Amino acid sequence: MTKSSPVPITVLGLGAMGRALANAFLIGGHPTAVWNRTPGRHAELVAAGATSAATVDEAVAAGGLIVACLLDHGSVHDVLDPVAGDLAGRTVVNLTSTAPSDARELAAWAECHGIEYLDGGIMSIPAMIGRPESFLLYSGSKEVFDENRAVLELLGSAEYFGADAGMASLYDFALLAAMYTMFAGFSHGAAMVRTEGVPATEFAKHAVQWLSAMVQVLPLSGEAIEAGAEADGQSLDFTKAALDAIVRASREAGVGLDVVGPLKALVDRQVADGHGAKAFDAVFEGVRAPGSE
Amino acid sequence: MTKSSPVPITVLGLGAMGRALANAFLIGGHPTAVWNRTPGRHAELVAAGATSAATVDEAVAAGGLIVACLLDHGSVHDVLDPVAGDLAGRTVVNLTSTAPSDARELAAWAECHGIEYLDGGIMSIPAMIGRPESFLLYSGSKEVFDENRAVLELLGSAEYFGADAGMASLYDFALLAAMYTMFAGFSHGAAMVRTEGVPATEFAKHAVQWLSAMVQVLPLSGEAIEAGAEADGQSLDFTKAALDAIVRASREAGVGLDVVGPLKALVDRQVADGHGAKAFDAVFEGVRAPGSE
Repeated sequence: MTKSSPVPITVLGLGAMGRALANAFLIGGHPTAVWNRTPGRHAELVAAGATSAATVDEAVAAGGLIVACLLDHGSVHDVLDPVAGDLAGRTVVNLTSTAPSDARELAAWAECHGIEYLDGGIMSIPAMIGRPESFLLYSGSKEVFDENRAVLELLGSAEYFGADAGMASLYDFALLAAMYTMFAGFSHGAAMVRTEGVPATEFAKHAVQWLSAMVQVLPLSGEAIEAGAEADGQSLDFTKAALDAIVRASREAGVGLDVVGPLKALVDRQVADGHGAKAFDAVFEGVRAPGSE
Repeated sequence: MTKSSPVPITVLGLGAMGRALANAFLIGGHPTAVWNRTPGRHAELVAAGATSAATVDEAVAAGGLIVACLLDHGSVHDVLDPVAGDLAGRTVVNLTSTAPSDARELAAWAECHGIEYLDGGIMSIPAMIGRPESFLLYSGSKEVFDENRAVLELLGSAEYFGADAGMASLYDFALLAAMYTMFAGFSHGAAMVRTEGVPATEFAKHAVQWLSAMVQVLPLSGEAIEAGAEADGQSLDFTKAALDAIVRASREAGVGLDVVGPLKALVDRQVADGHGAKAFDAVFEGVRAPGSE
Protein backbone atom coordinates (compact mmCIF):
# COMPACT_ATOMS: atom_id res chain seq x y z
CA MET A 1 0.00 0.00 0.00
CA THR A 2 3.04 2.28 0.38
CA LYS A 3 4.05 3.22 -3.10
CA SER A 4 5.19 6.23 -5.07
CA SER A 5 2.67 8.62 -6.62
CA PRO A 6 0.71 7.09 -9.46
CA VAL A 7 2.22 7.90 -12.84
CA PRO A 8 0.22 10.41 -14.90
CA ILE A 9 -1.36 9.00 -18.05
CA THR A 10 -2.58 10.60 -21.24
CA VAL A 11 -5.31 8.82 -23.21
CA LEU A 12 -5.58 9.80 -26.86
CA GLY A 13 -8.88 8.80 -28.42
CA LEU A 14 -12.21 8.72 -26.58
CA GLY A 15 -14.26 6.21 -28.47
CA ALA A 16 -16.12 3.73 -26.31
CA MET A 17 -12.89 1.85 -25.66
CA GLY A 18 -10.75 4.91 -25.01
CA ARG A 19 -13.28 6.16 -22.48
CA ALA A 20 -13.24 2.77 -20.75
CA LEU A 21 -9.43 2.84 -20.57
CA ALA A 22 -9.35 6.37 -19.16
CA ASN A 23 -11.98 5.41 -16.61
CA ALA A 24 -9.93 2.41 -15.45
CA PHE A 25 -6.85 4.61 -15.01
CA LEU A 26 -8.89 7.11 -13.00
CA ILE A 27 -10.27 4.32 -10.80
CA GLY A 28 -6.66 3.20 -10.33
CA GLY A 29 -5.83 6.63 -8.98
CA HIS A 30 -3.75 7.93 -11.89
CA PRO A 31 -3.88 11.58 -12.91
CA THR A 32 -5.38 11.15 -16.36
CA ALA A 33 -5.46 13.63 -19.26
CA VAL A 34 -7.82 12.87 -22.12
CA TRP A 35 -8.07 14.11 -25.68
CA ASN A 36 -10.31 13.34 -28.62
CA ARG A 37 -10.36 14.77 -32.15
CA THR A 38 -14.12 15.30 -31.97
CA PRO A 39 -15.01 17.29 -28.81
CA GLY A 40 -17.81 16.41 -26.42
CA ARG A 41 -16.71 12.93 -25.40
CA HIS A 42 -14.99 13.86 -22.13
CA ALA A 43 -17.78 15.16 -19.87
CA GLU A 44 -18.22 12.02 -17.75
CA LEU A 45 -14.47 11.50 -17.51
CA VAL A 46 -13.87 15.07 -16.39
CA ALA A 47 -16.62 14.63 -13.81
CA ALA A 48 -14.68 11.56 -12.64
CA GLY A 49 -11.48 13.59 -12.28
CA ALA A 50 -9.85 13.59 -15.71
CA THR A 51 -8.21 16.61 -17.26
CA SER A 52 -9.49 17.49 -20.70
CA ALA A 53 -6.81 18.55 -23.19
CA ALA A 54 -7.88 20.84 -26.00
CA THR A 55 -5.01 19.79 -28.28
CA VAL A 56 -2.69 16.82 -28.71
CA ASP A 57 0.20 19.13 -27.73
CA GLU A 58 -1.52 19.91 -24.47
CA ALA A 59 -2.37 16.23 -23.89
CA VAL A 60 1.24 15.18 -24.44
CA ALA A 61 2.52 18.03 -22.27
CA ALA A 62 0.58 16.56 -19.34
CA GLY A 63 3.54 14.19 -19.10
CA GLY A 64 3.66 10.55 -18.21
CA LEU A 65 2.60 7.55 -20.19
CA ILE A 66 0.90 8.06 -23.57
CA VAL A 67 -1.85 5.55 -24.29
CA ALA A 68 -3.31 5.74 -27.80
CA CYS A 69 -6.65 4.16 -28.67
CA LEU A 70 -7.63 5.65 -32.01
CA LEU A 71 -9.71 4.55 -34.98
CA ASP A 72 -6.96 2.94 -37.02
CA HIS A 73 -3.31 3.00 -38.00
CA GLY A 74 -3.70 6.13 -40.12
CA SER A 75 -5.23 7.95 -37.17
CA VAL A 76 -2.22 7.08 -35.01
CA HIS A 77 0.14 8.77 -37.46
CA ASP A 78 -2.23 11.71 -37.94
CA VAL A 79 -2.24 12.30 -34.19
CA LEU A 80 1.34 11.42 -33.23
CA ASP A 81 3.41 12.61 -36.22
CA PRO A 82 3.01 16.32 -35.42
CA VAL A 83 4.21 15.77 -31.83
CA ALA A 84 6.91 13.20 -32.57
CA GLY A 85 9.61 15.62 -31.46
CA ASP A 86 7.97 16.11 -28.06
CA LEU A 87 7.68 12.36 -27.58
CA ALA A 88 11.43 11.66 -27.66
CA GLY A 89 12.35 9.82 -24.47
CA ARG A 90 8.71 9.26 -23.67
CA THR A 91 6.72 6.02 -23.72
CA VAL A 92 3.84 5.25 -26.06
CA VAL A 93 1.54 2.28 -25.52
CA ASN A 94 -0.54 1.91 -28.66
CA LEU A 95 -3.80 0.07 -28.07
CA THR A 96 -5.33 1.04 -31.40
CA SER A 97 -6.46 -1.94 -33.49
CA THR A 98 -3.71 -2.05 -36.07
CA ALA A 99 -2.40 -4.75 -38.37
CA PRO A 100 0.81 -6.63 -37.48
CA SER A 101 2.63 -4.85 -40.32
CA ASP A 102 1.33 -1.49 -39.01
CA ALA A 103 2.53 -2.28 -35.50
CA ARG A 104 5.97 -3.13 -36.85
CA GLU A 105 6.00 0.10 -38.85
CA LEU A 106 5.03 2.12 -35.77
CA ALA A 107 7.73 0.40 -33.72
CA ALA A 108 10.29 1.41 -36.36
CA TRP A 109 8.89 4.95 -36.46
CA ALA A 110 9.09 5.16 -32.67
CA GLU A 111 12.67 3.89 -32.58
CA CYS A 112 13.61 6.47 -35.19
CA HIS A 113 12.24 9.24 -32.94
CA GLY A 114 13.68 7.89 -29.71
CA ILE A 115 10.26 6.87 -28.40
CA GLU A 116 9.79 3.77 -26.25
CA TYR A 117 7.08 1.71 -27.92
CA LEU A 118 4.79 -1.06 -26.74
CA ASP A 119 2.04 -2.33 -28.97
CA GLY A 120 -1.08 -3.83 -27.48
CA GLY A 121 -4.25 -5.59 -28.52
CA ILE A 122 -7.34 -5.30 -26.37
CA MET A 123 -9.23 -8.56 -25.97
CA SER A 124 -12.28 -7.05 -24.35
CA ILE A 125 -15.33 -5.02 -25.03
CA PRO A 126 -15.38 -1.61 -23.35
CA ALA A 127 -17.82 -2.72 -20.66
CA MET A 128 -15.36 -5.38 -19.47
CA ILE A 129 -12.29 -3.17 -19.16
CA GLY A 130 -10.89 -3.33 -15.63
CA ARG A 131 -12.47 -6.72 -14.99
CA PRO A 132 -10.38 -9.89 -14.73
CA GLU A 133 -11.98 -11.51 -17.81
CA SER A 134 -10.68 -8.65 -19.92
CA PHE A 135 -7.28 -9.46 -21.30
CA LEU A 136 -4.74 -7.49 -23.22
CA LEU A 137 -1.91 -8.74 -25.38
CA TYR A 138 1.35 -6.85 -25.65
CA SER A 139 4.48 -7.05 -27.74
CA GLY A 140 7.41 -4.74 -28.44
CA SER A 141 9.55 -3.22 -25.69
CA LYS A 142 9.91 -5.70 -22.83
CA GLU A 143 11.18 -2.86 -20.61
CA VAL A 144 8.03 -0.81 -21.16
CA PHE A 145 5.88 -3.84 -20.44
CA ASP A 146 7.71 -4.72 -17.23
CA GLU A 147 7.92 -1.16 -15.94
CA ASN A 148 4.26 -0.41 -16.55
CA ARG A 149 2.77 -3.78 -15.79
CA ALA A 150 0.81 -2.59 -12.75
CA VAL A 151 -0.70 0.24 -14.77
CA LEU A 152 -1.55 -2.08 -17.66
CA GLU A 153 -3.19 -4.57 -15.32
CA LEU A 154 -5.69 -1.91 -14.30
CA LEU A 155 -7.25 -2.64 -17.70
CA GLY A 156 -7.35 -6.42 -17.36
CA SER A 157 -4.91 -9.30 -17.41
CA ALA A 158 -1.76 -8.54 -19.38
CA GLU A 159 0.34 -10.98 -21.39
CA TYR A 160 3.57 -10.30 -23.24
CA PHE A 161 4.11 -11.96 -26.63
CA GLY A 162 7.69 -10.99 -27.43
CA ALA A 163 9.85 -8.25 -28.90
CA ASP A 164 8.24 -8.41 -32.37
CA ALA A 165 5.79 -5.50 -32.07
CA GLY A 166 3.52 -7.19 -34.60
CA MET A 167 2.88 -10.32 -32.55
CA ALA A 168 0.26 -8.89 -30.16
CA SER A 169 -1.58 -7.49 -33.13
CA LEU A 170 -1.49 -10.80 -34.98
CA TYR A 171 -2.97 -12.57 -31.96
CA ASP A 172 -5.39 -9.70 -31.48
CA PHE A 173 -6.65 -9.97 -35.05
CA ALA A 174 -6.79 -13.75 -34.94
CA LEU A 175 -8.86 -13.68 -31.74
CA LEU A 176 -11.07 -10.83 -32.95
CA ALA A 177 -11.69 -12.67 -36.21
CA ALA A 178 -12.81 -15.68 -34.18
CA MET A 179 -15.01 -13.46 -32.00
CA TYR A 180 -16.71 -11.51 -34.78
CA THR A 181 -17.30 -14.77 -36.61
CA MET A 182 -18.85 -16.27 -33.49
CA PHE A 183 -21.08 -13.20 -33.04
CA ALA A 184 -22.17 -13.47 -36.67
CA GLY A 185 -23.00 -17.13 -36.12
CA PHE A 186 -25.09 -16.13 -33.11
CA SER A 187 -26.93 -13.57 -35.25
CA HIS A 188 -27.66 -16.22 -37.85
CA GLY A 189 -29.03 -18.61 -35.24
CA ALA A 190 -31.10 -15.83 -33.67
CA ALA A 191 -32.51 -14.95 -37.10
CA MET A 192 -33.49 -18.62 -37.64
CA VAL A 193 -35.47 -18.99 -34.41
CA ARG A 194 -36.96 -15.52 -34.84
CA THR A 195 -38.84 -16.89 -37.85
CA GLU A 196 -40.93 -18.84 -35.30
CA GLY A 197 -41.28 -15.84 -33.01
CA VAL A 198 -38.50 -16.69 -30.54
CA PRO A 199 -36.78 -13.49 -29.33
CA ALA A 200 -32.99 -13.22 -29.53
CA THR A 201 -32.85 -12.89 -25.74
CA GLU A 202 -34.46 -16.34 -25.40
CA PHE A 203 -32.12 -17.81 -28.01
CA ALA A 204 -29.15 -16.27 -26.20
CA LYS A 205 -29.84 -18.35 -23.08
CA HIS A 206 -29.42 -21.57 -25.02
CA ALA A 207 -26.57 -20.25 -27.14
CA VAL A 208 -24.56 -19.35 -24.03
CA GLN A 209 -24.96 -22.87 -22.64
CA TRP A 210 -24.18 -24.55 -25.95
CA LEU A 211 -21.32 -22.37 -27.13
CA SER A 212 -19.72 -22.35 -23.66
CA ALA A 213 -19.51 -26.14 -23.90
CA MET A 214 -18.26 -26.02 -27.48
CA VAL A 215 -15.55 -23.48 -26.70
CA GLN A 216 -14.07 -26.07 -24.36
CA VAL A 217 -13.65 -28.37 -27.38
CA LEU A 218 -11.32 -25.94 -29.17
CA PRO A 219 -8.13 -27.49 -27.72
CA LEU A 220 -9.21 -30.78 -29.34
CA SER A 221 -9.75 -28.87 -32.56
CA GLY A 222 -6.25 -27.41 -32.24
CA GLU A 223 -4.83 -30.92 -31.77
CA ALA A 224 -6.81 -32.20 -34.76
CA ILE A 225 -5.45 -29.37 -36.90
CA GLU A 226 -1.89 -30.16 -35.88
CA ALA A 227 -2.54 -33.86 -36.59
CA GLY A 228 -3.80 -33.12 -40.11
CA ALA A 229 -7.48 -33.21 -39.19
CA GLU A 230 -7.69 -36.98 -38.92
CA ALA A 231 -11.28 -37.64 -37.85
CA ASP A 232 -11.86 -39.43 -34.57
CA GLY A 233 -15.35 -38.05 -34.30
CA GLN A 234 -17.67 -36.63 -36.91
CA SER A 235 -16.34 -36.49 -40.43
CA LEU A 236 -16.48 -33.53 -42.77
CA ASP A 237 -18.97 -35.56 -44.86
CA PHE A 238 -21.26 -35.53 -41.83
CA THR A 239 -20.69 -31.80 -41.37
CA LYS A 240 -21.50 -31.23 -45.03
CA ALA A 241 -24.84 -33.03 -44.65
CA ALA A 242 -25.65 -30.96 -41.57
CA LEU A 243 -24.63 -27.69 -43.21
CA ASP A 244 -26.58 -28.52 -46.38
CA ALA A 245 -29.66 -29.04 -44.21
CA ILE A 246 -29.03 -25.85 -42.21
CA VAL A 247 -28.61 -23.81 -45.37
CA ARG A 248 -31.76 -25.30 -46.88
CA ALA A 249 -33.75 -24.63 -43.71
CA SER A 250 -32.40 -21.08 -43.54
CA ARG A 251 -33.37 -20.44 -47.14
CA GLU A 252 -36.83 -21.95 -46.61
CA ALA A 253 -37.32 -19.68 -43.60
CA GLY A 254 -36.21 -16.61 -45.56
CA VAL A 255 -33.06 -16.10 -43.50
CA GLY A 256 -30.05 -14.68 -45.34
CA LEU A 257 -27.14 -16.93 -46.17
CA ASP A 258 -24.47 -14.26 -45.61
CA VAL A 259 -22.98 -16.20 -42.69
CA VAL A 260 -23.62 -19.89 -43.35
CA GLY A 261 -23.52 -19.86 -47.17
CA PRO A 262 -19.76 -19.18 -47.37
CA LEU A 263 -19.12 -21.76 -44.63
CA LYS A 264 -21.00 -24.36 -46.65
CA ALA A 265 -18.97 -23.36 -49.72
CA LEU A 266 -15.73 -23.86 -47.78
CA VAL A 267 -16.79 -27.28 -46.48
CA ASP A 268 -18.08 -28.26 -49.93
CA ARG A 269 -14.70 -27.34 -51.40
CA GLN A 270 -12.79 -29.40 -48.84
CA VAL A 271 -15.08 -32.40 -49.45
CA ALA A 272 -14.73 -31.99 -53.23
CA ASP A 273 -10.95 -31.94 -52.73
CA GLY A 274 -11.16 -35.38 -51.13
CA HIS A 275 -11.14 -34.49 -47.42
CA GLY A 276 -14.64 -35.77 -46.60
CA ALA A 277 -13.37 -38.44 -44.26
CA LYS A 278 -11.34 -35.94 -42.25
CA ALA A 279 -12.55 -33.96 -39.23
CA PHE A 280 -14.24 -30.56 -39.42
CA ASP A 281 -10.83 -29.10 -38.67
CA ALA A 282 -9.89 -29.79 -42.29
CA VAL A 283 -11.45 -26.38 -42.95
CA PHE A 284 -8.24 -25.03 -41.40
CA GLU A 285 -6.29 -26.21 -44.42
CA GLY A 286 -8.95 -24.71 -46.66
CA VAL A 287 -8.45 -21.32 -45.03
CA ARG A 288 -4.69 -21.71 -44.81
CA ALA A 289 -4.36 -22.68 -48.48
CA PRO A 290 -6.91 -20.42 -50.17
CA GLY A 291 -8.76 -21.64 -53.24
CA SER A 292 -8.30 -19.95 -56.56
CA GLU A 293 -11.58 -18.02 -56.45
CA MET B 1 -32.75 -47.92 -6.86
CA THR B 2 -35.74 -50.27 -6.93
CA LYS B 3 -37.20 -49.89 -10.37
CA SER B 4 -38.62 -52.00 -13.18
CA SER B 5 -36.36 -53.61 -15.75
CA PRO B 6 -34.69 -51.11 -18.06
CA VAL B 7 -36.62 -50.67 -21.29
CA PRO B 8 -34.95 -52.24 -24.34
CA ILE B 9 -33.72 -49.77 -26.94
CA THR B 10 -32.92 -50.11 -30.63
CA VAL B 11 -30.41 -47.69 -32.14
CA LEU B 12 -30.60 -47.29 -35.91
CA GLY B 13 -27.48 -45.75 -37.38
CA LEU B 14 -23.96 -46.27 -36.06
CA GLY B 15 -22.10 -43.22 -37.19
CA ALA B 16 -19.91 -41.63 -34.51
CA MET B 17 -23.00 -40.16 -32.84
CA GLY B 18 -25.12 -43.30 -33.08
CA ARG B 19 -22.34 -45.32 -31.49
CA ALA B 20 -22.09 -42.78 -28.67
CA LEU B 21 -25.85 -42.98 -28.06
CA ALA B 22 -25.84 -46.78 -28.00
CA ASN B 23 -22.92 -46.74 -25.62
CA ALA B 24 -24.73 -44.40 -23.24
CA PHE B 25 -27.79 -46.66 -23.23
CA LEU B 26 -25.59 -49.67 -22.50
CA ILE B 27 -23.90 -47.83 -19.65
CA GLY B 28 -27.39 -47.02 -18.36
CA GLY B 29 -28.13 -50.73 -18.23
CA HIS B 30 -30.58 -50.95 -21.14
CA PRO B 31 -30.68 -53.99 -23.42
CA THR B 32 -29.59 -52.34 -26.65
CA ALA B 33 -29.92 -53.60 -30.22
CA VAL B 34 -27.90 -51.83 -32.88
CA TRP B 35 -28.11 -51.70 -36.65
CA ASN B 36 -26.21 -49.88 -39.38
CA ARG B 37 -26.62 -49.97 -43.14
CA THR B 38 -22.89 -50.48 -43.61
CA PRO B 39 -21.70 -53.44 -41.51
CA GLY B 40 -18.62 -53.41 -39.31
CA ARG B 41 -19.51 -50.53 -37.01
CA HIS B 42 -20.83 -52.60 -34.10
CA ALA B 43 -17.82 -54.58 -32.81
CA GLU B 44 -17.05 -52.39 -29.78
CA LEU B 45 -20.72 -52.06 -28.91
CA VAL B 46 -21.27 -55.81 -29.08
CA ALA B 47 -18.23 -56.27 -26.87
CA ALA B 48 -19.93 -53.88 -24.44
CA GLY B 49 -23.11 -55.94 -24.46
CA ALA B 50 -25.14 -54.74 -27.43
CA THR B 51 -27.03 -57.07 -29.76
CA SER B 52 -26.20 -56.62 -33.41
CA ALA B 53 -29.18 -56.78 -35.76
CA ALA B 54 -28.52 -57.89 -39.33
CA THR B 55 -31.59 -56.13 -40.71
CA VAL B 56 -33.87 -53.25 -39.78
CA ASP B 57 -36.69 -55.79 -39.34
CA GLU B 58 -34.63 -57.66 -36.81
CA ALA B 59 -33.63 -54.42 -35.07
CA VAL B 60 -37.24 -53.33 -34.75
CA ALA B 61 -38.33 -56.80 -33.61
CA ALA B 62 -36.01 -56.44 -30.61
CA GLY B 63 -38.87 -54.36 -29.19
CA GLY B 64 -38.76 -51.27 -27.03
CA LEU B 65 -37.87 -47.74 -27.93
CA ILE B 66 -36.59 -46.98 -31.45
CA VAL B 67 -33.87 -44.32 -31.56
CA ALA B 68 -32.85 -43.22 -35.04
CA CYS B 69 -29.61 -41.37 -35.69
CA LEU B 70 -29.06 -41.55 -39.44
CA LEU B 71 -27.33 -39.44 -42.05
CA ASP B 72 -30.25 -37.23 -43.04
CA HIS B 73 -34.00 -37.00 -43.52
CA GLY B 74 -33.94 -39.16 -46.65
CA SER B 75 -32.11 -41.91 -44.76
CA VAL B 76 -34.82 -41.92 -42.09
CA HIS B 77 -37.50 -42.66 -44.67
CA ASP B 78 -35.27 -45.19 -46.45
CA VAL B 79 -34.85 -47.09 -43.19
CA LEU B 80 -38.28 -46.68 -41.56
CA ASP B 81 -40.72 -46.74 -44.50
CA PRO B 82 -40.31 -50.49 -45.13
CA VAL B 83 -41.06 -51.28 -41.45
CA ALA B 84 -43.76 -48.67 -40.89
CA GLY B 85 -46.39 -51.38 -40.40
CA ASP B 86 -44.35 -53.01 -37.62
CA LEU B 87 -43.91 -49.68 -35.88
CA ALA B 88 -47.62 -49.07 -35.26
CA GLY B 89 -48.12 -48.49 -31.53
CA ARG B 90 -44.36 -48.20 -31.02
CA THR B 91 -42.34 -45.12 -30.16
CA VAL B 92 -39.72 -43.51 -32.39
CA VAL B 93 -37.31 -40.90 -31.12
CA ASN B 94 -35.61 -39.38 -34.14
CA LEU B 95 -32.24 -37.81 -33.33
CA THR B 96 -31.14 -37.50 -36.95
CA SER B 97 -30.20 -33.96 -37.97
CA THR B 98 -33.25 -32.99 -39.99
CA ALA B 99 -34.74 -29.67 -40.99
CA PRO B 100 -37.78 -28.28 -39.13
CA SER B 101 -39.95 -28.96 -42.16
CA ASP B 102 -38.60 -32.54 -42.31
CA ALA B 103 -39.36 -33.09 -38.64
CA ARG B 104 -42.92 -31.87 -39.15
CA GLU B 105 -43.26 -34.16 -42.16
CA LEU B 106 -41.99 -37.14 -40.15
CA ALA B 107 -44.37 -36.33 -37.30
CA ALA B 108 -47.27 -36.36 -39.78
CA TRP B 109 -45.96 -39.61 -41.33
CA ALA B 110 -45.72 -41.17 -37.86
CA GLU B 111 -49.22 -40.08 -36.91
CA CYS B 112 -50.53 -41.57 -40.13
CA HIS B 113 -48.97 -44.92 -39.18
CA GLY B 114 -50.00 -44.86 -35.54
CA ILE B 115 -46.42 -44.32 -34.36
CA GLU B 116 -45.63 -42.17 -31.32
CA TYR B 117 -43.06 -39.61 -32.46
CA LEU B 118 -40.59 -37.40 -30.66
CA ASP B 119 -38.08 -35.36 -32.60
CA GLY B 120 -34.77 -34.44 -31.07
CA GLY B 121 -31.72 -32.35 -31.78
CA ILE B 122 -28.39 -33.33 -30.27
CA MET B 123 -26.40 -30.41 -28.95
CA SER B 124 -23.20 -32.34 -28.38
CA ILE B 125 -20.31 -33.95 -30.11
CA PRO B 126 -20.16 -37.73 -29.78
CA ALA B 127 -17.37 -37.59 -27.18
CA MET B 128 -19.61 -35.57 -24.83
CA ILE B 129 -22.68 -37.82 -24.97
CA GLY B 130 -23.63 -38.93 -21.48
CA ARG B 131 -21.90 -35.98 -19.86
CA PRO B 132 -23.86 -33.17 -18.22
CA GLU B 133 -22.59 -30.51 -20.68
CA SER B 134 -24.24 -32.47 -23.50
CA PHE B 135 -27.76 -31.29 -24.08
CA LEU B 136 -30.55 -32.48 -26.27
CA LEU B 137 -33.59 -30.60 -27.47
CA TYR B 138 -36.90 -32.33 -28.01
CA SER B 139 -40.26 -31.45 -29.49
CA GLY B 140 -43.30 -33.41 -30.63
CA SER B 141 -45.12 -35.85 -28.34
CA LYS B 142 -45.09 -34.58 -24.77
CA GLU B 143 -46.15 -38.04 -23.58
CA VAL B 144 -43.14 -39.68 -25.20
CA PHE B 145 -40.84 -37.07 -23.71
CA ASP B 146 -42.26 -37.42 -20.20
CA GLU B 147 -42.40 -41.23 -20.25
CA ASN B 148 -38.84 -41.63 -21.52
CA ARG B 149 -37.20 -38.72 -19.80
CA ALA B 150 -34.92 -40.90 -17.64
CA VAL B 151 -33.72 -42.78 -20.71
CA LEU B 152 -33.18 -39.58 -22.66
CA GLU B 153 -31.22 -38.07 -19.81
CA LEU B 154 -28.68 -40.86 -20.12
CA LEU B 155 -27.52 -38.93 -23.19
CA GLY B 156 -27.26 -35.53 -21.52
CA SER B 157 -29.63 -32.86 -20.24
CA ALA B 158 -33.01 -32.92 -21.97
CA GLU B 159 -35.28 -29.97 -22.72
CA TYR B 160 -38.73 -30.01 -24.28
CA PHE B 161 -39.64 -27.26 -26.76
CA GLY B 162 -43.30 -27.96 -27.41
CA ALA B 163 -45.67 -30.03 -29.50
CA ASP B 164 -44.50 -28.60 -32.84
CA ALA B 165 -42.12 -31.38 -33.90
CA GLY B 166 -40.09 -28.85 -35.92
CA MET B 167 -39.13 -26.66 -32.97
CA ALA B 168 -36.30 -28.81 -31.59
CA SER B 169 -34.84 -29.00 -35.06
CA LEU B 170 -35.09 -25.26 -35.59
CA TYR B 171 -33.21 -24.66 -32.33
CA ASP B 172 -30.82 -27.47 -33.21
CA PHE B 173 -29.98 -25.91 -36.56
CA ALA B 174 -29.74 -22.42 -35.12
CA LEU B 175 -27.30 -23.60 -32.43
CA LEU B 176 -25.33 -25.78 -34.84
CA ALA B 177 -25.07 -22.88 -37.28
CA ALA B 178 -23.64 -20.77 -34.45
CA MET B 179 -21.24 -23.58 -33.48
CA TYR B 180 -19.93 -24.36 -36.95
CA THR B 181 -19.50 -20.66 -37.56
CA MET B 182 -17.55 -20.34 -34.32
CA PHE B 183 -15.36 -23.31 -35.26
CA ALA B 184 -14.70 -21.74 -38.65
CA GLY B 185 -13.72 -18.50 -36.94
CA PHE B 186 -11.31 -20.45 -34.75
CA SER B 187 -9.79 -22.05 -37.86
CA HIS B 188 -9.32 -18.63 -39.41
CA GLY B 189 -7.60 -17.29 -36.31
CA ALA B 190 -5.43 -20.40 -36.10
CA ALA B 191 -4.45 -19.95 -39.76
CA MET B 192 -3.46 -16.33 -39.07
CA VAL B 193 -1.09 -17.07 -36.18
CA ARG B 194 0.26 -20.13 -37.98
CA THR B 195 1.79 -17.72 -40.51
CA GLU B 196 4.21 -16.77 -37.71
CA GLY B 197 4.77 -20.38 -36.70
CA VAL B 198 2.33 -20.54 -33.78
CA PRO B 199 0.69 -23.99 -33.59
CA ALA B 200 -3.10 -24.28 -33.42
CA THR B 201 -2.79 -25.93 -30.01
CA GLU B 202 -1.09 -22.80 -28.66
CA PHE B 203 -3.69 -20.55 -30.28
CA ALA B 204 -6.46 -22.71 -28.79
CA LYS B 205 -5.34 -21.86 -25.25
CA HIS B 206 -5.92 -18.18 -25.84
CA ALA B 207 -9.03 -18.73 -27.94
CA VAL B 208 -10.69 -20.72 -25.14
CA GLN B 209 -10.04 -17.93 -22.65
CA TRP B 210 -11.18 -15.19 -25.02
CA LEU B 211 -14.20 -16.86 -26.55
CA SER B 212 -15.38 -18.15 -23.15
CA ALA B 213 -15.54 -14.55 -22.00
CA MET B 214 -17.20 -13.41 -25.21
CA VAL B 215 -19.86 -16.11 -25.08
CA GLN B 216 -20.99 -14.54 -21.80
CA VAL B 217 -21.70 -11.34 -23.73
CA LEU B 218 -24.29 -13.00 -25.99
CA PRO B 219 -27.24 -12.16 -23.72
CA LEU B 220 -26.30 -8.48 -24.16
CA SER B 221 -26.19 -9.10 -27.89
CA GLY B 222 -29.66 -10.65 -27.68
CA GLU B 223 -30.91 -7.58 -25.84
CA ALA B 224 -29.28 -5.27 -28.38
CA ILE B 225 -30.95 -7.18 -31.22
CA GLU B 226 -34.35 -6.88 -29.57
CA ALA B 227 -33.73 -3.17 -28.97
CA GLY B 228 -32.91 -2.55 -32.63
CA ALA B 229 -29.14 -2.74 -32.20
CA GLU B 230 -28.80 0.69 -30.62
CA ALA B 231 -25.10 0.99 -29.82
CA ASP B 232 -24.12 1.49 -26.21
CA GLY B 233 -20.64 0.18 -26.85
CA GLN B 234 -18.70 -0.15 -30.08
CA SER B 235 -20.44 0.94 -33.24
CA LEU B 236 -20.64 -0.97 -36.48
CA ASP B 237 -18.39 1.73 -37.98
CA PHE B 238 -15.75 0.66 -35.45
CA THR B 239 -16.32 -3.00 -36.29
CA LYS B 240 -15.98 -2.19 -39.98
CA ALA B 241 -12.60 -0.55 -39.40
CA ALA B 242 -11.46 -3.58 -37.38
CA LEU B 243 -12.72 -6.08 -39.95
CA ASP B 244 -11.17 -4.11 -42.81
CA ALA B 245 -7.84 -4.35 -40.99
CA ILE B 246 -8.28 -8.04 -40.19
CA VAL B 247 -9.13 -8.83 -43.81
CA ARG B 248 -6.16 -6.82 -45.05
CA ALA B 249 -3.80 -8.52 -42.58
CA SER B 250 -5.18 -11.93 -43.53
CA ARG B 251 -4.68 -11.24 -47.21
CA GLU B 252 -1.14 -9.93 -46.59
CA ALA B 253 -0.35 -13.12 -44.67
CA GLY B 254 -1.75 -15.32 -47.45
CA VAL B 255 -4.64 -16.60 -45.34
CA GLY B 256 -7.88 -17.35 -47.21
CA LEU B 257 -10.83 -15.01 -46.82
CA ASP B 258 -13.48 -17.77 -46.93
CA VAL B 259 -14.54 -17.04 -43.36
CA VAL B 260 -13.91 -13.34 -42.74
CA GLY B 261 -14.49 -12.02 -46.27
CA PRO B 262 -18.24 -12.65 -46.25
CA LEU B 263 -18.48 -11.24 -42.72
CA LYS B 264 -16.81 -8.05 -43.90
CA ALA B 265 -19.22 -7.93 -46.86
CA LEU B 266 -22.19 -8.22 -44.49
CA VAL B 267 -20.90 -5.48 -42.18
CA ASP B 268 -20.04 -3.30 -45.18
CA ARG B 269 -23.58 -3.70 -46.49
CA GLN B 270 -25.11 -2.75 -43.14
CA VAL B 271 -22.84 0.32 -42.90
CA ALA B 272 -23.67 1.27 -46.51
CA ASP B 273 -27.36 0.96 -45.60
CA GLY B 274 -26.89 3.60 -42.92
CA HIS B 275 -26.48 1.46 -39.80
CA GLY B 276 -22.88 2.44 -39.01
CA ALA B 277 -23.80 4.09 -35.73
CA LYS B 278 -25.61 0.99 -34.51
CA ALA B 279 -24.11 -1.91 -32.58
CA PHE B 280 -22.51 -4.97 -34.17
CA ASP B 281 -25.84 -6.68 -33.61
CA ALA B 282 -27.20 -4.77 -36.59
CA VAL B 283 -25.81 -7.67 -38.61
CA PHE B 284 -28.82 -9.57 -37.26
CA GLU B 285 -31.11 -7.42 -39.40
CA GLY B 286 -28.78 -7.97 -42.33
CA VAL B 287 -29.16 -11.72 -41.99
CA ARG B 288 -32.84 -11.51 -41.18
CA ALA B 289 -33.59 -9.32 -44.18
CA PRO B 290 -31.31 -10.75 -46.87
CA GLY B 291 -29.83 -8.45 -49.49
CA SER B 292 -30.72 -8.79 -53.13
CA GLU B 293 -27.53 -10.57 -54.11
